[in-house]
Amino acid sequence: MKNTILLLFAFSICSVTWSQGNKKSEIDAKVSELLSKMTLEEKVGQMTQITVTIFEDSKKPGYFDPAKLKQGIQDYHIGSILNVPNPGAPTIQRWQETLTAIANETNKTRLKIPILYGIDAIHGASYTAGATLFPQQIGLAATFNTDLVKRGAEISAYETRASSIPWVFSPDLDFPRNPAWSRMWESFGEDAYLSSKMAVALVDGFEGNNVGSKYSVASCMKHYIGYGSTYTGKDRTPSIIPERLLRQYDLTIYEAAIKAGAKSVMVSSGEINGTPVHASKHLITDILKNELGFSGVVVTDWKDIIYLHTRHKIAETKRDAVRIAIMAGIDMSMVPEEFSFYTDLVDLVKKGEVPMSRIDDAVTRILRMKFELNLFQNTVANLKDYPKFGSPEHIQEAYKTAVESITLLKNNNAVLPLNKNEKILVTGATANSMKYLNGGWSYTWQGEKSDTYAADKFTILEAFQNKIGKENVLYTPGADLEIENEAEIQKAVDLAKNASKILLCLGEKNYTETPGDISNLFMSSSQIKLALALSKLNKPIILVLNEGRPRLISDFEDKMNAVIQCYLPGNEGARALVDIIYGDINPSGRLPYNYPRYPNSLEKYNRKYTESISEGEQNDDAKYEKSYLPQYEFGTGLSYTSFKYSNLKMDKTEINSNDEINVSVEVTNSGKKAGKESVLLYLSDNFASITPEFKSLKRFEKISLEPNETKTVKFTLNQKDLQFVNEDLKWISEKGTFTIQVSNLKKDFALK
Amino acid sequence: MKNTILLLFAFSICSVTWSQGNKKSEIDAKVSELLSKMTLEEKVGQMTQITVTIFEDSKKPGYFDPAKLKQGIQDYHIGSILNVPNPGAPTIQRWQETLTAIANETNKTRLKIPILYGIDAIHGASYTAGATLFPQQIGLAATFNTDLVKRGAEISAYETRASSIPWVFSPDLDFPRNPAWSRMWESFGEDAYLSSKMAVALVDGFEGNNVGSKYSVASCMKHYIGYGSTYTGKDRTPSIIPERLLRQYDLTIYEAAIKAGAKSVMVSSGEINGTPVHASKHLITDILKNELGFSGVVVTDWKDIIYLHTRHKIAETKRDAVRIAIMAGIDMSMVPEEFSFYTDLVDLVKKGEVPMSRIDDAVTRILRMKFELNLFQNTVANLKDYPKFGSPEHIQEAYKTAVESITLLKNNNAVLPLNKNEKILVTGATANSMKYLNGGWSYTWQGEKSDTYAADKFTILEAFQNKIGKENVLYTPGADLEIENEAEIQKAVDLAKNASKILLCLGEKNYTETPGDISNLFMSSSQIKLALALSKLNKPIILVLNEGRPRLISDFEDKMNAVIQCYLPGNEGARALVDIIYGDINPSGRLPYNYPRYPNSLEKYNRKYTESISEGEQNDDAKYEKSYLPQYEFGTGLSYTSFKYSNLKMDKTEINSNDEINVSVEVTNSGKKAGKESVLLYLSDNFASITPEFKSLKRFEKISLEPNETKTVKFTLNQKDLQFVNEDLKWISEKGTFTIQVSNLKKDFALK
Repeated sequence: MKNTILLLFAFSICSVTWSQGNKKSEIDAKVSELLSKMTLEEKVGQMTQITVTIFEDSKKPGYFDPAKLKQGIQDYHIGSILNVPNPGAPTIQRWQETLTAIANETNKTRLKIPILYGIDAIHGASYTAGATLFPQQIGLAATFNTDLVKRGAEISAYETRASSIPWVFSPDLDFPRNPAWSRMWESFGEDAYLSSKMAVALVDGFEGNNVGSKYSVASCMKHYIGYGSTYTGKDRTPSIIPERLLRQYDLTIYEAAIKAGAKSVMVSSGEINGTPVHASKHLITDILKNELGFSGVVVTDWKDIIYLHTRHKIAETKRDAVRIAIMAGIDMSMVPEEFSFYTDLVDLVKKGEVPMSRIDDAVTRILRMKFELNLFQNTVANLKDYPKFGSPEHIQEAYKTAVESITLLKNNNAVLPLNKNEKILVTGATANSMKYLNGGWSYTWQGEKSDTYAADKFTILEAFQNKIGKENVLYTPGADLEIENEAEIQKAVDLAKNASKILLCLGEKNYTETPGDISNLFMSSSQIKLALALSKLNKPIILVLNEGRPRLISDFEDKMNAVIQCYLPGNEGARALVDIIYGDINPSGRLPYNYPRYPNSLEKYNRKYTESISEGEQNDDAKYEKSYLPQYEFGTGLSYTSFKYSNLKMDKTEINSNDEINVSVEVTNSGKKAGKESVLLYLSDNFASITPEFKSLKRFEKISLEPNETKTVKFTLNQKDLQFVNEDLKWISEKGTFTIQVSNLKKDFALK
Repeated sequence: MKNTILLLFAFSICSVTWSQGNKKSEIDAKVSELLSKMTLEEKVGQMTQITVTIFEDSKKPGYFDPAKLKQGIQDYHIGSILNVPNPGAPTIQRWQETLTAIANETNKTRLKIPILYGIDAIHGASYTAGATLFPQQIGLAATFNTDLVKRGAEISAYETRASSIPWVFSPDLDFPRNPAWSRMWESFGEDAYLSSKMAVALVDGFEGNNVGSKYSVASCMKHYIGYGSTYTGKDRTPSIIPERLLRQYDLTIYEAAIKAGAKSVMVSSGEINGTPVHASKHLITDILKNELGFSGVVVTDWKDIIYLHTRHKIAETKRDAVRIAIMAGIDMSMVPEEFSFYTDLVDLVKKGEVPMSRIDDAVTRILRMKFELNLFQNTVANLKDYPKFGSPEHIQEAYKTAVESITLLKNNNAVLPLNKNEKILVTGATANSMKYLNGGWSYTWQGEKSDTYAADKFTILEAFQNKIGKENVLYTPGADLEIENEAEIQKAVDLAKNASKILLCLGEKNYTETPGDISNLFMSSSQIKLALALSKLNKPIILVLNEGRPRLISDFEDKMNAVIQCYLPGNEGARALVDIIYGDINPSGRLPYNYPRYPNSLEKYNRKYTESISEGEQNDDAKYEKSYLPQYEFGTGLSYTSFKYSNLKMDKTEINSNDEINVSVEVTNSGKKAGKESVLLYLSDNFASITPEFKSLKRFEKISLEPNETKTVKFTLNQKDLQFVNEDLKWISEKGTFTIQVSNLKKDFALK
């Protein structure tokens, strides 16, 4: 009977594949037919993406000037629009009106090709008023729960389509090598395997089984490639990444998302080793399109073709920048504020500098995506189809995701959970604003208006007041994020004398991209001073971090009794935090990066042995402090219960070059509270011709355990897990011993 | 007449070349003959380098145990010895005795091949008591005076040969990409062109016209390659350098030194992109030996073959590590504490795992160097040949070099020079010890014994006392380098009240290699606190920096009236400093690196445009602070006079692909004091297919000017100066415009 079910299931998969294949050839035929009818100008127009605000009526922000919209769509034949009408974050009704006006204009064109509208909806439909906002990506990674993340992406897709928008510029697949980077929080952290798994969960959630459904959106992998790896940590500054490392880490994340079906990709604004990615045929055409077989749309980031001339200075003119980028393999230009791209590209094709075959490849990809999204039929949302937009059901999912992301980093003497009867002081610059919970890309680009748009949501202060009553919560901000003010600190110190415990909320302003650049990874000195002043009272301090990247706290961390990392947990974050603080919820997040202790010691957890010889390996130089001493290591995450690992087993201790190896481990909740535990499996290659990593994450699974309950967690490792990229850029494995590590348990096996 | 002289001069060059060529073939014949007589064991012995201390009598440190020395030389046939007998820094007499004992032992061997003795004499004969110690390399770079640097190397060679040692492990050609690196000060700073010129000056000075003369030594370029570019800044941790960048920068320095005739090279202990350099046939054999035609000896660094197994973990056994390193192209192993290398390599050759041809190549190189050094005749120094060892003449050269290295970074309201009649407070942790003037590699590895060996030299405090009389100099240390002590700070504050100005001496402990690793580039907090406390007195403070790398001073720099960078100026450094402070000498050093302001903003001066868009280029993103804002930029260096630049001229504004371009500029001493000025010429390639640098140094010349004197400085740029390494790893130039910049003057020309 069991076999029958499996067979039926297998059959059902086949039939889906067959029908998709069929649909694919149908779509290809439609694309070919449409392409054959198009003029050069219409084709180049499809490749042109313009920001919506340039079509607005200067006297009536947020509404179109019909003549401007007509010019863009009729005269320049533009194929895509992005971004948000003024003043930001329309309701779904206003989005519907906006997209309807656009559709009406395209219906007046010769071929009636719908506009592909794209949006930076990166943690929910984050540019729509009333949408459900989830934790930012770094928090998703911290959940180590791909099911939860996928479900969140489904809701984001639903609410984005409810906003009549079919295309999100998400997920972010950046692989940050410098934690100071201003978009660290938009990534999944420092591990490529975790990033891959989370990327697939988001793509699956966004695109569903049928991207053309009214509840799915096309995803956009960004920012291909190496964007998050700048040497200095400043946004859009140069990356230095040898191709071996690009293949070993960065590219694996894209490979996973492409296999999951991601429909589009946005190109990095940066350069790698002196070559801007927008100008790299090697990276875009040879590797992405040809080697990885990516058949979707390659879109630029903001103005990046023009920047090849003005910023990177590899093109002597804007026109030459267009030629270079299109010949590198760009399909669509986010121009986005004028039409020079269109004019230049038409001219380049007419003069034979860009072949029509390249244009046809680009337009084929764009039209295919429009057909796959079913835009020709399903152009604007019917609001009746979206009853769950911003619903309690959706909000509950965002809350659950926030709950599983929040990471307890320190809990000396079990100071947490708190007792609800205690009077507390809530203080710190981030304690009473939604801005610091949501961060950038929330309602507006920099996220500065969260307090207006999410006025009905709880700030941290409000969540405490709601939980234990206003009479039990003292509050004063204590410090500004940047400006030092002794009097404000003194107020907090004075107030703290009336409280039994202190909730100290520190963090960062809302930011993204260049405005988020920093030169000093330490927490701002105004906040450090508040922490040090409060610590002199000898009252227990619970440090709550609201930050996009790990700002250094080593100046005062030893004086904190507990530390909780919230990342940017979104609109439901404060409720989740307070439920954890009072023990109504058991925390289960894990850090997706090494939290550094010092500004010039930014090693990752998967460092090489030469970076960690103070750790007691068989090494006669162990006496020298190599200062691999992160404040908290990747994977750190405490619980109110305790988990015991035992019986780490493998089914083989020797394998051949085509064997898998099955691993199991027993995990017991040895404490008194139900809890969730992310079980992480690390692998070490003990010797290899490329210096091996100290260890690297190969599998993880999150489980729930009641007190005294034991579960056996099973993992299967395959040959790919044993491989690395060698000097010839090939994935290979080498004979020798490997060590598996789960929690504090280790076992060796040999590849023969 | 002029022509005749030139012809004669040309003839004389030819005849030198001819005689060297003749000598070369003579030596080659001798090498072949000797090699043909050698057994496998004798050959492998030549490739074995052992540290001198393992041959010592355990009961009589510093003296040989005859049985041990016999075993090394007779049984293992070792070819080379390095390092210093206990307790460190012998006199020339003791060196003579040591080398005589070694020579006596080799004379008992079958073939009587002399031992090649090598030493880390890196700023003078720094392991010989009484030797003349110069500024460390970073200070040499700051002089921008190649003649002076070459003369210093001649003196170092003289005094090293006076110590009976023919081989120095210098110059350091490392190209540090992270200023936190503990060996930053052993390099020439952040510019590859400046480093190349200084490297050639040192090689020329060390090796002279005839390396076999009794006043010359063989140089050793180190550490080939990429050693100084670790990602984290920690010593011997991984470097990440794409080959394009390795060729654009690092390799050019080696190329220049090889052309200058450098006889040997030491390999980097690090890895590049996952491959330890000691294991890289590509880097050692393909590029260094074959492509660059290096015909000298390739020696490992300390224990680095063994470390391929224990530290890098690319070899499963020590034996396999030997095979990998020798097949990569290593000629000599600094084993150096036992004989496993010898045993393993003999076995590897016998079993056919290493071909005899590889051994013969290595031994040929080693024997050639021994013949070139004339070791078969000139084995041990005759002390009568070295009357100038440690002489006033030599000391004066070290003083002059220190004078030209010391760099005045700030001089608000011309607070300097000081008046000799003022009472001053000298304070700070580095004010009264020779250790901080000399740094590491001085008498001992870490340089902790400078106060004993250089007891007769002036500390900064003593130099002040000598200059203006003890009665005018108040002193208290004020701060420890690391330990905070409020009482000591208070003492300094109290004492300062009796002084009219404060000389605040801050810096770093003596260090090199791993013991110098840091995780935080800020100046130590004990010293920051002293600076802040003193600044509250509103008395003029002159900050004197004694440091190997730019420790951040941005917490208090705005409160300093003058800032002087001494680097590690050596034994004569304090005299030079004080002569500058009182205006007896006009300072002329220039910073050879960007002095950072913040720990996570370590951009170099030759950054890309994307790293500097706050500087007012034609760029619409100038509104965003990219924080390219070093504390002091590369090339900064003030004078007590002023220099005016005018009439920047070029002989062409358009050139073809084989033209040179002649540039001239007039420099006038427009102040009232004679002074020296390093004239720096920068070039910018305005557009290029590899993103161009903001600017890069192409020429420099140091001139002396009396008040009101004007000199015309001439430079010739050639095609190579216009080139860069493209994606295919070729040096190319591209048509377009270039901008020449000298001081604040700019001119464009076009390559057609």
